[in-house]
Amino acid sequence: MSRIYIEQLHEVAGQQVTLHGWLYNKRSSGKIRFLVMRDGTGFVQGVIAKGAVSEEVFARFDELTQESAFTMTGTVRAEKRSPGGFELDVTDLTILHIAHEYPITPKEHGTDFLMDRRHLWLRSSRQHAILRVRHQVIKSIREFFDGRGFTLVDAPIFTPAACEGTSTLFETKYFDLGSAYLTQSGQLYGEAGAMAFGKVYVFGPTFRAEKSKTRRHLTEFWMVEPEVAFNDLSDNMDLAEAMLEHVVQSCLKDRAAELKLLERNTAMLENVKAPLPRITYDEAVEILHKNGIAFEWGNDLGGTDETVVSQQFDRPVMVHRYPAEVKAFYMKRDPQNPKVALAVDVLAPEGYGEIIGGSQREDDFDALLGRIKEHNLPQSAFDWYLDLRRYGSVPHAGFGLGIERTVSWICGLDHLREAIPFPRMIYRLTP
Amino acid sequence: MSRIYIEQLHEVAGQQVTLHGWLYNKRSSGKIRFLVMRDGTGFVQGVIAKGAVSEEVFARFDELTQESAFTMTGTVRAEKRSPGGFELDVTDLTILHIAHEYPITPKEHGTDFLMDRRHLWLRSSRQHAILRVRHQVIKSIREFFDGRGFTLVDAPIFTPAACEGTSTLFETKYFDLGSAYLTQSGQLYGEAGAMAFGKVYVFGPTFRAEKSKTRRHLTEFWMVEPEVAFNDLSDNMDLAEAMLEHVVQSCLKDRAAELKLLERNTAMLENVKAPLPRITYDEAVEILHKNGIAFEWGNDLGGTDETVVSQQFDRPVMVHRYPAEVKAFYMKRDPQNPKVALAVDVLAPEGYGEIIGGSQREDDFDALLGRIKEHNLPQSAFDWYLDLRRYGSVPHAGFGLGIERTVSWICGLDHLREAIPFPRMIYRLTP
Repeated sequence: MSRIYIEQLHEVAGQQVTLHGWLYNKRSSGKIRFLVMRDGTGFVQGVIAKGAVSEEVFARFDELTQESAFTMTGTVRAEKRSPGGFELDVTDLTILHIAHEYPITPKEHGTDFLMDRRHLWLRSSRQHAILRVRHQVIKSIREFFDGRGFTLVDAPIFTPAACEGTSTLFETKYFDLGSAYLTQSGQLYGEAGAMAFGKVYVFGPTFRAEKSKTRRHLTEFWMVEPEVAFNDLSDNMDLAEAMLEHVVQSCLKDRAAELKLLERNTAMLENVKAPLPRITYDEAVEILHKNGIAFEWGNDLGGTDETVVSQQFDRPVMVHRYPAEVKAFYMKRDPQNPKVALAVDVLAPEGYGEIIGGSQREDDFDALLGRIKEHNLPQSAFDWYLDLRRYGSVPHAGFGLGIERTVSWICGLDHLREAIPFPRMIYRLTP
Repeated sequence: MSRIYIEQLHEVAGQQVTLHGWLYNKRSSGKIRFLVMRDGTGFVQGVIAKGAVSEEVFARFDELTQESAFTMTGTVRAEKRSPGGFELDVTDLTILHIAHEYPITPKEHGTDFLMDRRHLWLRSSRQHAILRVRHQVIKSIREFFDGRGFTLVDAPIFTPAACEGTSTLFETKYFDLGSAYLTQSGQLYGEAGAMAFGKVYVFGPTFRAEKSKTRRHLTEFWMVEPEVAFNDLSDNMDLAEAMLEHVVQSCLKDRAAELKLLERNTAMLENVKAPLPRITYDEAVEILHKNGIAFEWGNDLGGTDETVVSQQFDRPVMVHRYPAEVKAFYMKRDPQNPKVALAVDVLAPEGYGEIIGGSQREDDFDALLGRIKEHNLPQSAFDWYLDLRRYGSVPHAGFGLGIERTVSWICGLDHLREAIPFPRMIYRLTP
């Protein structure tokens, strides 16, 4: 017989089951003992009535400390007042391991204290809920692309040349070949994939050695990067909004309990449905001016600028056609206005800023080569990338979505560090 | 209207469609021109009859070189002799980009030549098929675990201490914290996850700086590592065989065309159904002796030994209870016989060797600490890991499955390098 987990209790109401898990907390009231077990899939209250169990079993209740491992056997009873809808009338209890005094208690702890104990902190209901939302985000992204005929193309983590200076790259010695650098984006490889498979997505960890200590920076973070042959900027925005709708609606549907536990006001998340508003960079600048910000055309939008723009909307907003000067060399210029690139950023509402950055790519060989020279990039390192414009070059577009930023926004977190199981930051490499 | 891809032609038989893609090859026969377009989802033949199209369109056929990008419009016609079941009677053709002379031709090329052009080689039907099988393997693994209530726990890529010597670790400078090492396995983090979520899987790239040039080594490869609280070795083997069955049967079902193109004899793959044979290490040694191999009890099985053992079976075989000395420090000893560890390796048939390695983990604090000391490992680096035995320690088990080895086996490849889009080996870091 397969093991029963707490999240399955609705399937076995009225039956006798044995649950395996850990003590979340306990209390006594007269001749009744209450304990809350967690088993990783949920929480359930066990009720032990004196007289209904042997003295021995009753005594074991006293022994249990927070996070002690135990099994409890009993009858599953529907209980409306219980968060999960069920309780267990306990008839037997077995101790598996008595935990030492657990360092994480309901009192307030500092962030460093908790981060040093991240391997234990994961057991707390709040962290537990966040990471289940993370799983849902990743699962729904893959579902979205798999269901639309995209092929997964894993980009390499080790990349050869340092493209735009080494200051934000992690470097490692690579046998007799000199140095390898950890990828900052799989996009260029995704473009090669799109020419082979038509529609692809890259999904993996990426790395930035930025000396930044803000709440919006991790040195190691995950990104999904779709790339589609024959897509233009408009198709790219269609794809981005459809994906966002799928991801957010899937979390609202399948992670409602977690979002409730996180006390997330989901009003603005409910609004994430295609079509999303699309404004040009020029219109974004107008919004800034109207709000009294002395923003100069040609600059990139900073964090505050993004917040001011996104506050005008009750859902994510797409800002497109940025000045080419502030965007990457591989972005195609707008044929209608070569001063702007066919780029799009998606800004999340509620001050969460950019969650997606994308563009239509330059598909003309000469234009791309010129751009590489203008940026003083080593042409030899991009020769393979130029091949994609030598052999059957077609319009194509893609974008990157940061997983931790997305999870952080959906959960309503203050800091990216809670959106990944074991965060890595400039000052943190453990546990 | 959404774009039509070649794999969707069966939905639009008899209708007029426009396809976007690249020229795979072409030929003439009297007044008829044939061209094969690939669009990343499949291949389809277009038929152009002189007189049915304008002279101009007919002339464009001559212009098209291998890998040139074009669109063709025409009527979808069922054609039994065609591999995909359909052909297109072309009424219009537009050239998007004429490719330079394509370097990869139907003639034989050396592996280095092809690997240097990996970004183009991906377009060849064989590489295309392999990587679609890879996608299926990854998709079916995630489906398997997601469908069984597992939570995805991404382990960190940057890890702090060099556990067992630095010789096979990639190292990178990490700000003021000294060095970070690229992960070789997410297992220890998976164990922390299992204590928080009950059932988890880690899925990501792992790294080994082995100076090995064999066909079975990559410096960067992907692994899935499930870990389950309350599972023992036997449960672990149940999980491994159920997962293998799901993955292989899913490839046979959904990637039949690709396996056919690869000329894979699928007889032994059809056999991958639970239960799989389970033998002890002792029984494996007996098999070796019966086959005239002078194998000494206590050694680890080498590649040849694995091949000899696996040749006795027409499906994967699980070998369990290895001598503890040749296995990792964290593996639990068999209470019945402390000389052996509760480890299991799964050997693929047809000489593909180990695809899974796993074990029940040591859950006793004192035993684990003793093992860490015996192996001269720095205790401070494992203090967080020991915490998992301080606070509610329970039996648990897990395993790791190498993605490239699995893809290589399912596709029947000679070398792991074809089982990943952009392979990294001791002598290869490009493109």
